[in-house]
Amino acid sequence: MEKLFVIKIGGNIIDDEAKLSSFLKHFATIEGKKVLIHGGGKLATKLAAQLGVEQQMVDGRRITDAETLKIVTMVYAGYINKNIVAALQSHNCNAIGLSGADGNAIKAHKRPLKNGIDYGFVGDVDEVNASLLKSLLDQNMVVVIAPITQDGNGQLLNTNADTIAQETAKALSNLYDVHLIYSFEKSGVLMNADDDASVINSINPLSYKELKEQNIIFAGMIPKLDNAFAALNSGVCRVIIGKAEELQNLIDQKSGTSILKN
Amino acid sequence: MEKLFVIKIGGNIIDDEAKLSSFLKHFATIEGKKVLIHGGGKLATKLAAQLGVEQQMVDGRRITDAETLKIVTMVYAGYINKNIVAALQSHNCNAIGLSGADGNAIKAHKRPLKNGIDYGFVGDVDEVNASLLKSLLDQNMVVVIAPITQDGNGQLLNTNADTIAQETAKALSNLYDVHLIYSFEKSGVLMNADDDASVINSINPLSYKELKEQNIIFAGMIPKLDNAFAALNSGVCRVIIGKAEELQNLIDQKSGTSILKN
Repeated sequence: MEKLFVIKIGGNIIDDEAKLSSFLKHFATIEGKKVLIHGGGKLATKLAAQLGVEQQMVDGRRITDAETLKIVTMVYAGYINKNIVAALQSHNCNAIGLSGADGNAIKAHKRPLKNGIDYGFVGDVDEVNASLLKSLLDQNMVVVIAPITQDGNGQLLNTNADTIAQETAKALSNLYDVHLIYSFEKSGVLMNADDDASVINSINPLSYKELKEQNIIFAGMIPKLDNAFAALNSGVCRVIIGKAEELQNLIDQKSGTSILKN
Repeated sequence: MEKLFVIKIGGNIIDDEAKLSSFLKHFATIEGKKVLIHGGGKLATKLAAQLGVEQQMVDGRRITDAETLKIVTMVYAGYINKNIVAALQSHNCNAIGLSGADGNAIKAHKRPLKNGIDYGFVGDVDEVNASLLKSLLDQNMVVVIAPITQDGNGQLLNTNADTIAQETAKALSNLYDVHLIYSFEKSGVLMNADDDASVINSINPLSYKELKEQNIIFAGMIPKLDNAFAALNSGVCRVIIGKAEELQNLIDQKSGTSILKN
């Protein structure tokens, strides 16, 4: 099967104009079929503050009320998505930006109450439309996905971008050899969070369990790694976590942390 | 050739949640291939006011400074476009939303100074990507276009939605029998602007000249009609101007104003 790169860029890259611009320039040069998934970084939080819409976070997840949904739809599916697509076009990389509503790309349902917490207009993914994505990739377009999904009844939903990357990678793993890359501001999963040189080269389920027990892996890295293992168990070939600035090295397995199935 | 409807919805419909919802419900039932082009109505102006970004208008056109471009990109390509697409999905109408950057759909250039006026980040259309639109229409998708274009060098540009409707209709007229419909809050071109029953059934170049001389057609209707005649002269089959609430009647030529080539 043909190789496909599903690449997530982290919020801290989005927030930094120079880093984002450099990332997109390198991204455009990666050969082969590609899907790019972006979050929204701090831009949505900033706009909410400017508009006086109070933001409530629980466990690092935004509670999405109606006003916040409007903001993230504008920022993620509008401002960020279209600027990324326009930048890629300038590098002769023919990109098309999608939200989950477009072409029925990603269906989701509103998250039910969890431990008594109502996350508001937050979507848990039901289905990624692999045939739509394939048809766009077959036309030599790069697909750029904003983390806004829909429930099929006209309701847009805010969805975690890491989860969208994982679900997209899984859905396409029957059609391509999918390589899933989580790129962010750090060099990989670190032994010591303060030392960017302490990258763990590979993690398998056994070492993951140990690293969690030793509190070396904690907080936001846990859902990221849970996502990575879930993707591998659903047919994704390879998952790599590493620095956005080193995209080509991540692809060549010269840097970052490889997540291994066994 | 197959029939294609290119339908523009006016700002006053976008601004009215109930009218927009009803319009989209009817739009979804129109048989055949369809492209929908929307403007932004007053939502961008409202958001600009909330953010304290002063808006400068010249001859009914917005001067688009960098902050305003950010706002219209968020509102048009994000909020409005994605909500329209999600609403159409709920009516089992598989829609895909595009800005001019997506798939290189619409290339434009920054408008040069006109009569000493710098319109800012406003784009004049160079080319609509007919083969992209055809490939999406061939996949039985309805294309929903936001009036944001790009210059190919990474710069997004704000573009008049009527012009985008006209250019899209023209670009597709080699591939389809294109019927271009400008739908808005009025019943058509009126003899008396205060009497919605005074619809002029048809206008040709000769009667257009007379109606302008008599000041019956004036202001914002002039560029709309200029656009309509330009479209007809470039291969578009039929242009109709009329009430958004009467979409099926406009299509059946039972209401609205028909613009005729001769």
